[in-house]
Amino acid sequence: MKGRIKKIFSNSGKEVDAILIGNGQHPNVDLNFFYTSGITSGAFEGCLIVAKSNGKGYLLTSELEELIARKETKLGVIVFKNKEERELHLKELLSDVNTLGINSNSLSYKQYSDISKFTKAKITDVSDTFSKIRSIKDKNEIKLISKACKISSKVASQLKSFIKLGTTENQLSSKISTLLLENGATNLAFPTIAAFGKNSSRPHHSPTDKKLQKNEFVLADFGAESNRYASDISRTFVFGKAHKKMKEIYETVLDAQLQAIGMIRDGVNGKGVDKLARSIIDKKFKGRFIHSLGHEVGLSVHDGKNLSSQADFILKENMVVTVEPGIYIPSIGGVRIEDTVLVTRNKAKILTNAPKELIEI
Amino acid sequence: MKGRIKKIFSNSGKEVDAILIGNGQHPNVDLNFFYTSGITSGAFEGCLIVAKSNGKGYLLTSELEELIARKETKLGVIVFKNKEERELHLKELLSDVNTLGINSNSLSYKQYSDISKFTKAKITDVSDTFSKIRSIKDKNEIKLISKACKISSKVASQLKSFIKLGTTENQLSSKISTLLLENGATNLAFPTIAAFGKNSSRPHHSPTDKKLQKNEFVLADFGAESNRYASDISRTFVFGKAHKKMKEIYETVLDAQLQAIGMIRDGVNGKGVDKLARSIIDKKFKGRFIHSLGHEVGLSVHDGKNLSSQADFILKENMVVTVEPGIYIPSIGGVRIEDTVLVTRNKAKILTNAPKELIEI
Repeated sequence: MKGRIKKIFSNSGKEVDAILIGNGQHPNVDLNFFYTSGITSGAFEGCLIVAKSNGKGYLLTSELEELIARKETKLGVIVFKNKEERELHLKELLSDVNTLGINSNSLSYKQYSDISKFTKAKITDVSDTFSKIRSIKDKNEIKLISKACKISSKVASQLKSFIKLGTTENQLSSKISTLLLENGATNLAFPTIAAFGKNSSRPHHSPTDKKLQKNEFVLADFGAESNRYASDISRTFVFGKAHKKMKEIYETVLDAQLQAIGMIRDGVNGKGVDKLARSIIDKKFKGRFIHSLGHEVGLSVHDGKNLSSQADFILKENMVVTVEPGIYIPSIGGVRIEDTVLVTRNKAKILTNAPKELIEI
Repeated sequence: MKGRIKKIFSNSGKEVDAILIGNGQHPNVDLNFFYTSGITSGAFEGCLIVAKSNGKGYLLTSELEELIARKETKLGVIVFKNKEERELHLKELLSDVNTLGINSNSLSYKQYSDISKFTKAKITDVSDTFSKIRSIKDKNEIKLISKACKISSKVASQLKSFIKLGTTENQLSSKISTLLLENGATNLAFPTIAAFGKNSSRPHHSPTDKKLQKNEFVLADFGAESNRYASDISRTFVFGKAHKKMKEIYETVLDAQLQAIGMIRDGVNGKGVDKLARSIIDKKFKGRFIHSLGHEVGLSVHDGKNLSSQADFILKENMVVTVEPGIYIPSIGGVRIEDTVLVTRNKAKILTNAPKELIEI
C-alpha cells in the first residue's frame, strides 16, 4: 500500500516531511492506520505508522501482531517490546522531521501531548487530506464495499420469511445479525436495528422485546462489515395490510429515494440531492424527515461527509454514499428506505440491490 | 445515573467546575458518554454531556436520538437541530465555568481545539478520574458483564460439536459469532478469532479459509457484548490426538492460568500475578508467552489497565479482569486459556464458566 502514502502526500497541499498515525485502544482507533497500511485484520492497539514524504512508510507494532503486519503490509515493520522501545523508535524516525502532519480527528489530545514532548517538529493537522483521499475509493476498496453490500442485500431479500406474528424486535434483530455473519460478514458494521410499529418512528431505535402485531411497520437497518469495509441498508415492510396513510408514507419515501438516487452523479452537490428528497417529503409530510439524506461509507459506516441541508458536498466519481430518506410519525411509525450507492460519472450505481417495492407480509 | 456524576466529582481530586464529554463519530466514541448517561443504545455521534460540580448533568443530543435520550437517561436532555445550535447551548452551559475537565484519552485534538475557541475556562485533563471510577464496577455493571460472560461461556461449552475435519477458520469463526448473537449478545465485543494449527501461534490471528486437519490445535477467542458491556473468553481444543508436546503446552498454560486466578484478590498487584503466570511458563517454554496476562473489561473489551510485567496495578474489589496466559510456538501452534473474572475481597470469581480441561475432539 505504498501507493497510498504517495497519494496522501500528493494531496496534502501542505509542506509536511512526515505524517504520524497513532492507533489508540478500542474503540478509539484511527482507521487511517488501516487505510495507510492496507491491513484488514488485527487490532494494533497502541501501534503507529510514520509515513515520510519520500514515499517510505514504517509501521511500529508490538510482537502481538508482528506476523499479521509482515503478512499484510508493504510498509517497513518495526517491532517494539514495550512503550520505551516504541518511543525510542519513534524519536529516531522523527529525528530529521521539521513539520509533522497528524490526523486531529482521531489523535487524542493525550496522544498529541505525548508526541509534542519528544519532537521539536512543527505539528500540523492533515485530517482533511485523509478525508479527501479516503472519500474517493480505489478499485480494491470498491470491491470490498461491494462484497459487504452484496451480503447485506442478500439478507434483506431473505427477511420477509422471518417476519411473523409475535416475533420480537430482539429476535428479528438477532436473526438479521446472524444471517449477515452466516453470509460472510466478518463483523456487523453497526448494531442491527429492528423496530416495529410506533418504535419505527425513532430513527436510531434499539430493539426491545416488543412483539410484532398485525398491520404494523417493520423497519430493519443493518450492515455487513467485510474485511473492515462497511455497507448500510434499510428496508421497511408492512406486516399485515397497509392502510391508506401507511401506503402514502411508504410511496412518498420511495419516490424521494428513487428521485434522489436518480440525481446522483459526478459533480452534483449532495446538498441539492438532500433538498430534492426533502422537498418531495415536505409536500405531504412537512418536518417528518428528521435526519440527513445520507452519508459516506467506507472503513466506517459513517465515513466522512453527509448529504445534508447543512453543507456543500460535491459528489465525485468513486465515492460511496447512502441514500436514506425517511418519514417518522410517532403515532403511526416510520419508514426508511436506504441503499448504499457508488457515484459514477453518469449515475449512481446501487450496490445494495434488494427489492424495495412495498411488501405486505 | 446522576449518582455517577457525583462519583466523578468526588473522585476527581482536581478543582473543576464542570466536565465536558464529547462523543465523536464511530469509531471514535467516548465510552464515558455512555457511562455517565447510563444510556445503552443509540450512537449519539457528535453529542455531548456537560456535568456540573453541583451534581447536575446535561446531555446535548440531535433530534435523531432525542427519544432514546429521554427514555434512558436521568440527565437533562437538550436537543439541538444543527452544529450552530449545539455550540450555542454549549457556550451557555459553560458560561460560568472557570475550570473545565476533559477526557484527553478520547477527546480528539480537533474537538479540544474547537472547545478552546469558545470557552475561557482553564481546560484540565480528568481522564484518570474516569479510568479510576470505571475500573470499580457497580452492581448494575457487574450484572451486565455477568450476562455477557454467561452468553460467551454457553457458546464456548457448545463449541466442540462444531469442530470437524475440513471446517475452515472462517466457518468456525462465523459459527461462534452466530451463536453469540443467537444466545442474546447485542453485538460482538470484538471480531471472533478462530485459528487452527500453526495459525494459532499468532495471538491476534484473523480467520482464513484454512481447513482443519487432524491433530491440530483449535484456538477460539471471542466475546459477547450485551447492553454495551463486554466479555472475553478463549478456549483451545485439540482436534484429533494431542501429542506429548501439545499436552505439555496445554497443561503448562492451564497450570499458569489456574495459579494466576488463585492469586487474584483485593489488594494484590497485577504485576505480581503476571509474574507468577510468566514464571510457570518460562520454566518450560521460555519467552513463548508474548503478551500481557490480562486486561480490564467493561464498556470496552480492553477497558483500562493491563495485568502485565510493565506496570503496577493494584487489584481492587469489583474490578473485572481477564486472565489469559498463552504459549506460542510457530512450528506447532498456540494455546491460550482465558477467563473473565470478578475481583472480590478474598478471591477471583470466574464469570466465564466453560470447561477448560484438555478436550480432544
